[in-house]
Amino acid sequence: LTDKSSNSIVFAPVILAGGSGTRFWPRSRRSRAKQVLVLDGERSMIQQTVDRLKTLANPADVWVLTNELLRDTITGQLPELNVCHILCEPVARNTAPACALAAFLLEPTQPDTVIGIFPSDHVVQNEGRFTEVLQTAIKLAAAGENIVVLGVPPTRAETGYGYIELDEQVQDGSVPVHSVKRFTEKPDREQAEKFLAAGNYEWNSGVFLWSARTLASAIRKHMPEMVAPLEAIAKAYGTPEFESVFAAEYAKCQSISVDYAVLEPASHGDGAKILCVPADFAWNDLGSWAALHEHELAVKAAGSDERQNVVEALGATVIDAQGNYIYAPGKMVALVGVQNLVVVETEDALLITTLENSQRVGEIVKRLTAEKKTDLI
Amino acid sequence: LTDKSSNSIVFAPVILAGGSGTRFWPRSRRSRAKQVLVLDGERSMIQQTVDRLKTLANPADVWVLTNELLRDTITGQLPELNVCHILCEPVARNTAPACALAAFLLEPTQPDTVIGIFPSDHVVQNEGRFTEVLQTAIKLAAAGENIVVLGVPPTRAETGYGYIELDEQVQDGSVPVHSVKRFTEKPDREQAEKFLAAGNYEWNSGVFLWSARTLASAIRKHMPEMVAPLEAIAKAYGTPEFESVFAAEYAKCQSISVDYAVLEPASHGDGAKILCVPADFAWNDLGSWAALHEHELAVKAAGSDERQNVVEALGATVIDAQGNYIYAPGKMVALVGVQNLVVVETEDALLITTLENSQRVGEIVKRLTAEKKTDLI
Repeated sequence: LTDKSSNSIVFAPVILAGGSGTRFWPRSRRSRAKQVLVLDGERSMIQQTVDRLKTLANPADVWVLTNELLRDTITGQLPELNVCHILCEPVARNTAPACALAAFLLEPTQPDTVIGIFPSDHVVQNEGRFTEVLQTAIKLAAAGENIVVLGVPPTRAETGYGYIELDEQVQDGSVPVHSVKRFTEKPDREQAEKFLAAGNYEWNSGVFLWSARTLASAIRKHMPEMVAPLEAIAKAYGTPEFESVFAAEYAKCQSISVDYAVLEPASHGDGAKILCVPADFAWNDLGSWAALHEHELAVKAAGSDERQNVVEALGATVIDAQGNYIYAPGKMVALVGVQNLVVVETEDALLITTLENSQRVGEIVKRLTAEKKTDLI
Repeated sequence: LTDKSSNSIVFAPVILAGGSGTRFWPRSRRSRAKQVLVLDGERSMIQQTVDRLKTLANPADVWVLTNELLRDTITGQLPELNVCHILCEPVARNTAPACALAAFLLEPTQPDTVIGIFPSDHVVQNEGRFTEVLQTAIKLAAAGENIVVLGVPPTRAETGYGYIELDEQVQDGSVPVHSVKRFTEKPDREQAEKFLAAGNYEWNSGVFLWSARTLASAIRKHMPEMVAPLEAIAKAYGTPEFESVFAAEYAKCQSISVDYAVLEPASHGDGAKILCVPADFAWNDLGSWAALHEHELAVKAAGSDERQNVVEALGATVIDAQGNYIYAPGKMVALVGVQNLVVVETEDALLITTLENSQRVGEIVKRLTAEKKTDLI
C-alpha cells in the first residue's frame, strides 16, 4: 500500500474545508478561515493535510469540499489537485451531506474505492505513525462493510470533543483495532472525567474511512431523505447544470453531522461494523491560540524558547518573560516581565489576551458583528 | 504682564531639548526623542512647551538648545520660532553650559531680559495656573539678583528627582514665595521619605528663571573655567565661523547640571538669592509609559475608559480588561481578560510589558545596542 501506484485499493481522501471558525481571530476571518492559514511553519493547515496524505493517495483522487468564500484561496494553495474535485457547498449543511455526496459521486463507477474523511485544520506531529495507522485503516475499510474511525487517546477530560467507547479488541499488531460500542457527543465535565478514568474511551478525531458502497448504503439506510437530492447532484456532476442543481438540491438536505447521521445508528449494531484504530500520532485540532502555543512548544518550532515563549516575529528581546505566544510578523518584539499572554497582530487588528482567555476570542467577533464592523470579521 | 506686547520685562524662554532618553521606546529613538513625540493629544511635548509659553513670551524671544539629530524635526514642529534661535549643541554637556550660553548670548545687549529655562518634555494640566505662577516668577527674576526656581509639591517619596528644601516664606498672595535653604540631588529612599514627611521640601522641576546678568554673574563666580569658551561662542554667533567655534569651544566646557554648577553653591548664601515658587499646576515629567498612562487617565484623554484602560487606536473592543495602556495607531485593538499591561506598536517594533515593568525599557535598548540593531534604537 505504501507504493500507491501499484496499489490495488484506490484511496480517495475527502477533505472537509467548509468551516469558518473564529478561534484564530484576528488572523482568521470569513474569507481566511483557519484551514487556509499558515499557523505553524510554512504551509497552511489544508496544505499540511494534503501533504500528509501524499504517500497514501494519488493527488488526482483527492476531493475537497469547501465554500465559495474560500474557493480561490484553496485552489491557489493546492495546485496539484484536480480543480473539478474542489466543490463549494452552496449552503452549509454540516458533515453528513458532504460525506454522502462524495459516496454518491464515486459509488456508480468505483464502489470499492475507500473514502477517507479528513478535517482540514488539524496537525499531526508523527507523520510516520500517521501513515502506518492510515494504511491499516484503509485495508480494514476496503475489506467488506467496515466503517473505520480514528480515535485519539484522550489526555484530559475535554468537554469540547465527541467520545468513542471501545468494545473488544479485534486485531493485534502495531496498529491495534477495536470494535466500537458507542459514540457520545460532547459530554459534560462529570461524564468526561468518567470516560477518561474508564480507559476505554477515545476522542473522535473526525477521520472516518469506508468504501463508497458502504457509505452510500449507510446513508440510504439511516438518512433516506438525503438520497434523492444527493443522487441528483451526483448525476449533474460534470454537466453545465451542475452548479444550479447543486444549489437547488443541497439545500434540501438535513444539516447534521456524519457522527449523528450514520455512526451513532450504525454503532447500535444496525448494518456496517464500526472499527476504531488509534490516532496515536500526536494529534492536535488547534482549537485555540493556547492549543497552537502548546503545539509550537511540543515541536520546538522556530521562535520558541526554553521559557515557553513562542515569538513569531522578525526578532525578539525577551527579559523576564515566560509562557507567551506572540505573533507579529515583520516586527521586532520586546517582552519585559510578562507571563502567559497571547498577542496577535495583523495588518488591521491587534489582539491582546491571555492563554487562559484565548478561547474567548469568539466574543470579540460577536461584538464586531453586532457593531457591523464587517471588514474585521 | 499678560499682555506681552506692552510688557516692559522681556522674557526669553530657553527650552532645553537635547535629551535622548529611551523611556518611551519603541516610540522614542535617537532621532525621535521624547520631546518631539506626540505622546498625548495632537501636539508634541516641545510644541506643548512652546504653546504654553505663548501668553508669556514673544515667539521671537524663544530659544531652543537641541542636537543635530533632532534639529530638522524641531525646526519643522516649531515654524513660529526664529531658526537662528534653534541651536544644536555639538556635544552633550548637560544643562549648565546650555544655560550659561543663553546668558552670554543675551547679556551684552539685553542684560535685564529674564531667561527662563524649561525642559521640553513635561506636561502641565492646569495651564491657567502655570501662567499665573510664571508671571510671579518672571517679576521676581526681573527684580534684582534673584534666582527663581519652580518647586513641584511632592506626592510620593520619589528617588528619581532632586529636592528643594524651603526656608521662610518671603511673599504672600496667590503665588506664595519661599527662600531656598538647600538643593539635594536624587536622594535615597530613606531620605526621600524624610523629605516628604517634613513638608518643606519640593521636587526640582528643572524650571529656573533669572536675568541674563544674574545668570552670567553666577557662572562667572561658580564656573569660571566655562566663561572663556562660552564668551567665544557668543561672540561668534551670527558669523560664518559660528558652527566651527561652537564645535571647538563647547567641548571644553565641563559637563555638569545647572543645579550643581550654580544653584547648589548659590544656596549656600554666596551671591544671588534663590527663591522658590510652587509649580502647583499638575505637573508631570512623563518618566515612563506608566506615568503617561496615569496622565492620560487624569486628563480623561480620548481612548481612556472607566476601567482605567487607555487605548490609542482606530477602535477598541474591551472585555474584562483593566488598567492597560495600549498604543497601536491604525489598528482595531481587542483586549480580553488582561490587566495593567503596556503594549506599544510602531512600524517596526512591538513592546509588550506591564505598567510595573515599563521603567525597564532601557534594558531593551541596551540589548539592542549591544546587538548593533541600530535601526531600532
